[in-house]
Amino acid sequence: MTKLSALCIGDELLDGRIADKNAAWLGARAAEHGSDLESVRIVGDDLDLIVAALEQASRDSDLIVVSGGLGPTADDITRDAAAKWVGAELELDEQILETLERRFAERGYPFTPNNRRQCMFPQGADILQTRVGTAAGFAVEKNGCRALFFPGVPPEFRWFVETYILPKIGQHEGRRHRERLAFYGLGESQLESKLDGIEELAKEVGARVSYRAEYPVIEVNLKAIDEASLDRMRDHVLERVGPWLVAQGDETFAERLGQALLDHEATVTTAESCTAGRVAAKLTEISGSSGWFERGFLTYANDAKTDMLGVKPEILESFGAVSPQTVCQMAAGARAAAGATYAVATSGIAGPTGGTPDKPVGTVHFALATPDGVWHRHVAFSNRGRDRVLTASVYTVLSLLLWELEGRLDEHRVDGPFSDDEVWAPMGIRIED
Amino acid sequence: MTKLSALCIGDELLDGRIADKNAAWLGARAAEHGSDLESVRIVGDDLDLIVAALEQASRDSDLIVVSGGLGPTADDITRDAAAKWVGAELELDEQILETLERRFAERGYPFTPNNRRQCMFPQGADILQTRVGTAAGFAVEKNGCRALFFPGVPPEFRWFVETYILPKIGQHEGRRHRERLAFYGLGESQLESKLDGIEELAKEVGARVSYRAEYPVIEVNLKAIDEASLDRMRDHVLERVGPWLVAQGDETFAERLGQALLDHEATVTTAESCTAGRVAAKLTEISGSSGWFERGFLTYANDAKTDMLGVKPEILESFGAVSPQTVCQMAAGARAAAGATYAVATSGIAGPTGGTPDKPVGTVHFALATPDGVWHRHVAFSNRGRDRVLTASVYTVLSLLLWELEGRLDEHRVDGPFSDDEVWAPMGIRIED
Repeated sequence: MTKLSALCIGDELLDGRIADKNAAWLGARAAEHGSDLESVRIVGDDLDLIVAALEQASRDSDLIVVSGGLGPTADDITRDAAAKWVGAELELDEQILETLERRFAERGYPFTPNNRRQCMFPQGADILQTRVGTAAGFAVEKNGCRALFFPGVPPEFRWFVETYILPKIGQHEGRRHRERLAFYGLGESQLESKLDGIEELAKEVGARVSYRAEYPVIEVNLKAIDEASLDRMRDHVLERVGPWLVAQGDETFAERLGQALLDHEATVTTAESCTAGRVAAKLTEISGSSGWFERGFLTYANDAKTDMLGVKPEILESFGAVSPQTVCQMAAGARAAAGATYAVATSGIAGPTGGTPDKPVGTVHFALATPDGVWHRHVAFSNRGRDRVLTASVYTVLSLLLWELEGRLDEHRVDGPFSDDEVWAPMGIRIED
Repeated sequence: MTKLSALCIGDELLDGRIADKNAAWLGARAAEHGSDLESVRIVGDDLDLIVAALEQASRDSDLIVVSGGLGPTADDITRDAAAKWVGAELELDEQILETLERRFAERGYPFTPNNRRQCMFPQGADILQTRVGTAAGFAVEKNGCRALFFPGVPPEFRWFVETYILPKIGQHEGRRHRERLAFYGLGESQLESKLDGIEELAKEVGARVSYRAEYPVIEVNLKAIDEASLDRMRDHVLERVGPWLVAQGDETFAERLGQALLDHEATVTTAESCTAGRVAAKLTEISGSSGWFERGFLTYANDAKTDMLGVKPEILESFGAVSPQTVCQMAAGARAAAGATYAVATSGIAGPTGGTPDKPVGTVHFALATPDGVWHRHVAFSNRGRDRVLTASVYTVLSLLLWELEGRLDEHRVDGPFSDDEVWAPMGIRIED
């Protein structure tokens, strides 16, 4: 088996500006190809340290994947270190220069002298052409070890690995049958306990299950040796946590939701307070979203809720902006004002300031207006930071819409549906909170 | 200065299950204390690889911070590797055993035999008591280097670093002087050519400059040995690319913009077509944003632009939704409808579909309505994906607002200001495109 190691280069990886993601991604992809990543080294933009790291890595690996430091600026010295390590000079590659100049010209960018640096490679290196970004990669050998140098920008790095590394490693085990199921609204340990027995089933049918939390969604990844085993695994999962499904296979949440709206020939509008545009941004994440989204209302201030959506001032006064009554009027008002099939609304306290004993940070109310009435949901998010509260809020309100479209809303904890009369004279509504 | 390196241990860090976060966090905290993290190594749960990594790290560091592999299960072998590295046996520490048994009893957990492993340390090691979690840490020395072993669970790791590392580093050395300057609207190589001469200056004053691209912003990071040198470096940068500055020091772009609006006692509203909420989301990224943002308009469809903002149907018909004329009417209409000091507007083709020969994907028009008239800007983004076009659009329109507030707008390529008459009878406007 190929002994694979990674070397990630950049001061920004060591002083806390960013955490390296390339090595972990490389490890995951290598593992899928049946090969292990043996070790990772991270060093700063320092010529001698890079050379030393290459030398050390070359002694315990067959293949070193190097990322970072190939850009045009003076602190990008990886190519110099590679040359020093193998004892070669850097030389200009005319063909790469020509390609790069042409690409810059096509885009109307000025080709500055420092861009020429990106066309310099250690003498004798194999040059690895790119179809992404501007920097070409290269490969050199020493101590019986081959070192491949790729740009550190994650999309470029990934393209180089897919193109130049993965086809060369691993035993290429028979292609596994895979499924990805994404869920929202369950914690990771909650999901795992609901799936009780899945490890035994996996053992029985020769399958593997793994979990991946990409906040706020949790993915269950299934791999099996044949389609029948995969079906049994998938059934096991969906029987137990099917109601929380938000995406499957290659689709994104936004794609699934968009397709469901198209299938119903339905449109949706948004009335956002705390989320302030994030719900609409998610709805329009994909091309063609004008098919289901025409307009939305950002009503941060109370006056905006009244002017734009018709929320009654006495409701705001009696119950506050962050209340079931206000959010239901926001949704009903937006649906009427936009002439849309559905409306979603949010109002809450995302923090870090603005909480009160009654309504602490993380208190968010949601409403979904439908042709059959208005649904309400309240969530008390733990105070894990403004961005996380808002991200989860987007998923909460849009999964209500998805589940309604897919006939699964009654499997979730929601109040309603409330009629127009109840929403607009809401002193009489009883909403569990 | 203490030469600090990190060694992170665990198969899960190499097969893609999780990406290590401890090293980046350590680097950030060390930098705050004026010390650099020189290198990071990541290896799996393999006795010989851990020993080899300790040996290598000890040769180029004074202090190694080791994380992970101190748990009770069979794959936790870091303590064995530490013992093997220094040539000592593991021995049971009775005091730690007693503490651990008592802690388990208090919590009502069963104390299983494998928990005893957590009380074994290499003979002669310094034992580092914990007040978090269950595993104690320890320290050993070899090759003139001290290695400290901490649990890998991030909250525990952090506690150990705060307690046993940070107080020991940085006190001795002069604190480094740092500055972060963030720019928008210049490519990385373009920025570096404008900064021509900075490497020479850096050498002269004993400073360092590094660049980091976090799309779509580029950061210039300066480190110097004293405040006077840092000032000279900062001046050099700001004299040359000051007009493109969008954030400085610890502040985010949203924070700087919010503060500028507060300083001017100004409010802003948004009229978004292609960006569909992303501009407002950025404006409200921070707590207290209701101080400058009250409402916004998401006008994806033409009818919405007319109904909500008063864009004239004949303008949409003659020039299209993606045009200088439309976007200027959107901004002017939003400013009037919201009664805000400023309005920003976007209309464009984010792709991947929807482009035409005249208006290819990446064509975006921007407007900024001010008390003195409406400014227009057109950008032809290269087609690098929907998400990137929209992210850059948010920065383009909000940097116009920031630069207007800070009196820097006339240093940029914009058309205008157009008066109300010109905007609302725009057949007569000549806007360079």
